[in-house]
Amino acid sequence: MLPLLADLKTTMSLLSERSLILENWMYIAPVILLIATYLYVTENRNHRRRNANNSSKENLTSLAESEYIGEYQEENSPSEEYVSLLENVKHKPFPGAKIVLDGGATRFYEIANDRRSVRKYSRRSVDFSVIEKCIQTAGTGPSGAHTQPWTFCVVGNSEMKQAIREIIENEELENYAKRMSRKWTTDLGPLRTNHIKEYLTDAPYLILVFKKVYGIRTDGQKQQHYYNEISVSIATGILLCALQCAGLNSLISTPLNCGPALRQLLNRPVNEKLLVLLPVGYAADDCEVPDLQRKPLDEIMVKY
Amino acid sequence: MLPLLADLKTTMSLLSERSLILENWMYIAPVILLIATYLYVTENRNHRRRNANNSSKENLTSLAESEYIGEYQEENSPSEEYVSLLENVKHKPFPGAKIVLDGGATRFYEIANDRRSVRKYSRRSVDFSVIEKCIQTAGTGPSGAHTQPWTFCVVGNSEMKQAIREIIENEELENYAKRMSRKWTTDLGPLRTNHIKEYLTDAPYLILVFKKVYGIRTDGQKQQHYYNEISVSIATGILLCALQCAGLNSLISTPLNCGPALRQLLNRPVNEKLLVLLPVGYAADDCEVPDLQRKPLDEIMVKY
Repeated sequence: MLPLLADLKTTMSLLSERSLILENWMYIAPVILLIATYLYVTENRNHRRRNANNSSKENLTSLAESEYIGEYQEENSPSEEYVSLLENVKHKPFPGAKIVLDGGATRFYEIANDRRSVRKYSRRSVDFSVIEKCIQTAGTGPSGAHTQPWTFCVVGNSEMKQAIREIIENEELENYAKRMSRKWTTDLGPLRTNHIKEYLTDAPYLILVFKKVYGIRTDGQKQQHYYNEISVSIATGILLCALQCAGLNSLISTPLNCGPALRQLLNRPVNEKLLVLLPVGYAADDCEVPDLQRKPLDEIMVKY
Repeated sequence: MLPLLADLKTTMSLLSERSLILENWMYIAPVILLIATYLYVTENRNHRRRNANNSSKENLTSLAESEYIGEYQEENSPSEEYVSLLENVKHKPFPGAKIVLDGGATRFYEIANDRRSVRKYSRRSVDFSVIEKCIQTAGTGPSGAHTQPWTFCVVGNSEMKQAIREIIENEELENYAKRMSRKWTTDLGPLRTNHIKEYLTDAPYLILVFKKVYGIRTDGQKQQHYYNEISVSIATGILLCALQCAGLNSLISTPLNCGPALRQLLNRPVNEKLLVLLPVGYAADDCEVPDLQRKPLDEIMVKY
């Protein structure tokens, strides 16, 4: 180190003869060093702050995807009083499931197994009271802390269906052309889906299922809706069963990127987000479905 | 600046008389500056890399919650060939729903409306073939690009049920004590839930529903499972209907933070994540349920 230092000394001395800055290098260096240190420290602090934000979000993501903690961390200050949204309900004896299906699980399998996603509808009208009954059935679904975080919008009006179709087709054109991966569009290929959605105006009814990500309590406070997506999806599963039992066909669709526009068109509040959209009606006479197989039981069930 | 520089010059000269380091400051400073610059640049580069990761994850979260774009962005390089996982399925005529329920929507509403979440089970055994049929029925659910991203683990073995109960009770004790918000535990109060879960060993069967967040194709590549959470939740809704039709009771539970431990206990692969756990069986003779009301139709349905 010492010979190197000596070399450096000589070089610096030679250089320092040629410039005011180099001559005063000894005094400028500490100033630069101070500024550099200051920048480094502040920058680092900001990074740490930003990372803290990100990693808490990241935890939320990974947990929201797997374990659902985090979403429900304490929000109120500890001193705040909180009354359960269920209040003090009484408990009553429950004899277990009594109203069941003749033919039980086997018969219900036959019914459910007859259901297919239908993409081509007849314009034949559907009795609205049947739709109502099916939605009432969906409303029997379980939900986190019995929040029942669902709104079912039923659109029968032709102009409204047309407006919905326009929103979706415009977005879907973009989706198929740009936003969806080639993988995805290739995967969808055999289903013969594209951005033209005739079923949106052909089907007598469209049901738009909204999840309430939070509710507003009578005291004006936000009320968290635990597991709202799972709850509303389960209710949608019950809805599918009800429609099939009634002899109606449907299709679960998830119009990519159309949620906000459809929410506004239907004048739904900001706490509601579109989960799925189902055309409902009777299959067209020339309706076709892909000849898909369902996985056999041993591929979807494991016994312990 | 110049008088300050002169002052500094004097101070440094005075100081430099007293130490070897200060004497050679002029030559040590550039070396320190170089090291500091190097550290700053590399640190910054790492930060940028980490932030890029975080912000892509962050986008995923917000979009996954609202609109579901993003998850499905192009992953492959444009030159890569991709064959649809559905391959070239033929299409066939479909006459619409033909196997329906006698009594239609009204009768199915009666059946579904009789279902309640049961937290106290009889030890009375259940015919396993009925469970199988119910799971087969759940497997008729629709799924994004027909990926069928579900695995239903059915646990009848007593030791295994005990092991599951221990994992969940240990975690739930923590959850109720620390992780859940006071809001949440207050909301759950009327349901009389706590960390003791006798139903996990009393019920003859536990069904653990796993969602496959991605699959592995025959060529070893990852296969994306579009909308896997919605799909598996819908299938779970169908499962609930099937169990009720068969006269069986159940409960949708979401064991907070237990997913990874339960996945390992059941030896499920890393691409599977626990969605819900259902005890299944007959209600105990002294079973009680909270006397909750379901929202009337006009609170859950809007007509357009």
